[in-house]
Amino acid sequence: MHFLFDRPARVVLVAALLGVAGCARLETPPADPLPSWNDGETKQAILDFVRAVTDSASETFVPADERIATFDNDGTLWSEQPVYFQLQFALDRVRALAPKHPEWRRTQPFKAVLEGDQKGLAASGMQGLMEIIGATHAGMTTSEFEATVTEWIATARHPRFDRLYTECVFQPMLELLAYLRAHGFKTYIVSGGGIEFMRPWVQRVYGIPPEQVVGSSILVRFAMQDGVPVLVREPKIDFIDDKEAKPVAIHKFIGRRPIAAFGNSDGDHQMLQWTAAGSGPRLMVLIHHTDAEREWAYDRESHIGRLDKALDEAQARGWTVVDMKEDWSVIYPFGGDADSGPNE
Amino acid sequence: MHFLFDRPARVVLVAALLGVAGCARLETPPADPLPSWNDGETKQAILDFVRAVTDSASETFVPADERIATFDNDGTLWSEQPVYFQLQFALDRVRALAPKHPEWRRTQPFKAVLEGDQKGLAASGMQGLMEIIGATHAGMTTSEFEATVTEWIATARHPRFDRLYTECVFQPMLELLAYLRAHGFKTYIVSGGGIEFMRPWVQRVYGIPPEQVVGSSILVRFAMQDGVPVLVREPKIDFIDDKEAKPVAIHKFIGRRPIAAFGNSDGDHQMLQWTAAGSGPRLMVLIHHTDAEREWAYDRESHIGRLDKALDEAQARGWTVVDMKEDWSVIYPFGGDADSGPNE
Repeated sequence: MHFLFDRPARVVLVAALLGVAGCARLETPPADPLPSWNDGETKQAILDFVRAVTDSASETFVPADERIATFDNDGTLWSEQPVYFQLQFALDRVRALAPKHPEWRRTQPFKAVLEGDQKGLAASGMQGLMEIIGATHAGMTTSEFEATVTEWIATARHPRFDRLYTECVFQPMLELLAYLRAHGFKTYIVSGGGIEFMRPWVQRVYGIPPEQVVGSSILVRFAMQDGVPVLVREPKIDFIDDKEAKPVAIHKFIGRRPIAAFGNSDGDHQMLQWTAAGSGPRLMVLIHHTDAEREWAYDRESHIGRLDKALDEAQARGWTVVDMKEDWSVIYPFGGDADSGPNE
Repeated sequence: MHFLFDRPARVVLVAALLGVAGCARLETPPADPLPSWNDGETKQAILDFVRAVTDSASETFVPADERIATFDNDGTLWSEQPVYFQLQFALDRVRALAPKHPEWRRTQPFKAVLEGDQKGLAASGMQGLMEIIGATHAGMTTSEFEATVTEWIATARHPRFDRLYTECVFQPMLELLAYLRAHGFKTYIVSGGGIEFMRPWVQRVYGIPPEQVVGSSILVRFAMQDGVPVLVREPKIDFIDDKEAKPVAIHKFIGRRPIAAFGNSDGDHQMLQWTAAGSGPRLMVLIHHTDAEREWAYDRESHIGRLDKALDEAQARGWTVVDMKEDWSVIYPFGGDADSGPNE
C-alpha cells in the first residue's frame, strides 16, 4: 500500500499513529481523580453515582445538559469559622470606613465593631447586622463594590491560619468540582452568601463562572450618573438564599432540578430534599465538620452552620455524609507544607 | 513503510485520509452563515463585530467566556402581534378553566374574556390583567404549570397565520443565534415575558437552555405536599423584567455585562445602554418592525412593543437598526412554502 503515501499523507499518518499510542496509554489505570478523599463508602458513593449517570449504555444515564450539581459555599467549599468570611469582610469594611464616620465611635453596632466588643455586637442582633450590611454593602455602584471585594479577598488573612481566605477552601471539594466538570456536570454555587461578594473570585478559585453563582442579594437600581448608566446597590435586602429559599432560587436561576447537591447545614436541607425528590439517580451530600484539629468540629448546637434536622434526614434516608476527619486526607490546598498548620 | 501497517493502523489511516479530504473542503468559500439576511450595512455590522471580537490576533479580541449576548424575546425573536403570545396563552387558559368558575360569567375581567369583549378587557386595565395572571399563572405547582405551557405551545395556533406560535419565530434571528454560538457566544434571553412561560420550549426552538433565560417571575413558595417537596406559584408578582429592570436582572442572573444586545422596543432601551457602556467592541441592535405585509409595521405609537426613545438613541449613537422589510429576505421558518402566507 505504500504507493498511497505522498508527503502530506505521511505527516497525517505519523499523527494518526501517535494518536494510537495516545489511546494505548488509556489502558494503564487512570490516576485517582479524588486523591484527597480516603478510600471508603463516601468516596465510593460519589464515584458510583458519577458512573451511573455518565454510562451511556445504562438505564440511569443522564444527558450532559441535565447534569446540574449545586454547592453551598460557606462550610461546604470553604470554612465558615470562627465567623462567616463575609461577616469578616463587613467588619473589616467598618474599620476601613470609620475615619469618614466619626459618629460610629458613639453608635451601635459600629461602636462594638470598632472596640472589638463581640458581646455588644451580638446584642445588636439582626437589626445591627442589617445596619452593618447597609453601611458596608450598599451606597455604591456594583463596579465599586466589586473592586472593594477584589481588593479585600486578595489581601485579608484568616485569623487562625494567617492565610488568604481563598486558601481556606477544601482541597477535596476542589477535586470534586473538577471531577464532576470533567464528566460533563455544570457546577453551581447556591449559597446564603452574597452573590456579588462571591462572583469576583469564584472562577479563579473554584472554576465556577459568575453566571453559575446563586446567592443572597440586596436591591440594585439602574441610574444615570453623568450620562453613564450604572447599577447602584441599595441598603435593602432583595433575597436571602437560605433554607426554603434555596430550591426557589435554584428554580428561578437555573430552571432545572439538580441531580447532585452538596451542603453542610440545615440551611441546605431543603435544597437536598428538592434534589432527592427528582427521578433517577441522585446524590445528596452533607459535609460534617468533625475535625477540630485540622478545621473545626460542630453540628447540632452550633450558631454557625448548624447541622441538625438535615443530619437526621440524611441518616434516615441514606444520604451521603462526609466525615471530614475520616474521609479527607487533606483539608486545605496548603496542607502538607512544613508550616501549613492545620494539616500537619 | 508498509510493514508498519497492521489492521488497526490501516483503519486509522483511512480515517486520517478522510480527515485530509475534510480539511481540503474548507478551502472553498464558507456558506453564508446568515442566508436570510440581505447583504447590506446591517448584516455587515454583525459580521464585522463578530470578526472583531473573535480574531485572537486583534486588540479587540474578547475571550469566549465573556462573549455574552442578550436577546429580548417578544418582537425580537418571535412576533408579538396582534397581542403578546403569553397574553393569548392567559386568555386561552381563562376559557379552558371557565367551566370550573361559573362566577366568571358575571365578573370582570373574566366576563370580557369569555365574551370576546376586547373593549371591556382593555377597560379592566392593569388590575384586570393581574387578576387574569393570578387565575391562570398561579395556584399550581411549577411542574403543573410547565405541563400546561408545554401542552398549549404544542397545540395553540396563531390567529393570522394558523401556525404554532413556535413557528412564528424569526428565521434570521435563529440563524443569528446559531452563528453567535458557533463563534463562542453564550446566548441569553432577557425578556419581559415570564421565565416559566419560556423555559419549557426555548431550548428546542432557539437552542437556548433553561438556565440562560431571564424574565419576569411571580413568587414561588417551597412546600411539602404529602411528604413530597414542591414549588407552588403564588398570585403575586416577584419581578417585572422590563426597562430599567433589564440591566438589573442581567447583573443578578448573569453577573457579566453583555457585549451584544438585541431588542425591539423601549423596554429594551436600558439593556442596550448598559451594553453600550462597557469597553471594547459592542453591538447594540434594534429590530424595527417595518413590514406590514409579511409581519407588522409599528413603532412610536404602538401600544405593543413601542419603539420611540430607543430609536432616537439608536439613530443618534449609531446603533444597528434592522429594517425588517429591507434586511430580511425571509421572516419565518415557514416562509417560501406555497401556502406560507406572510413570506409569499
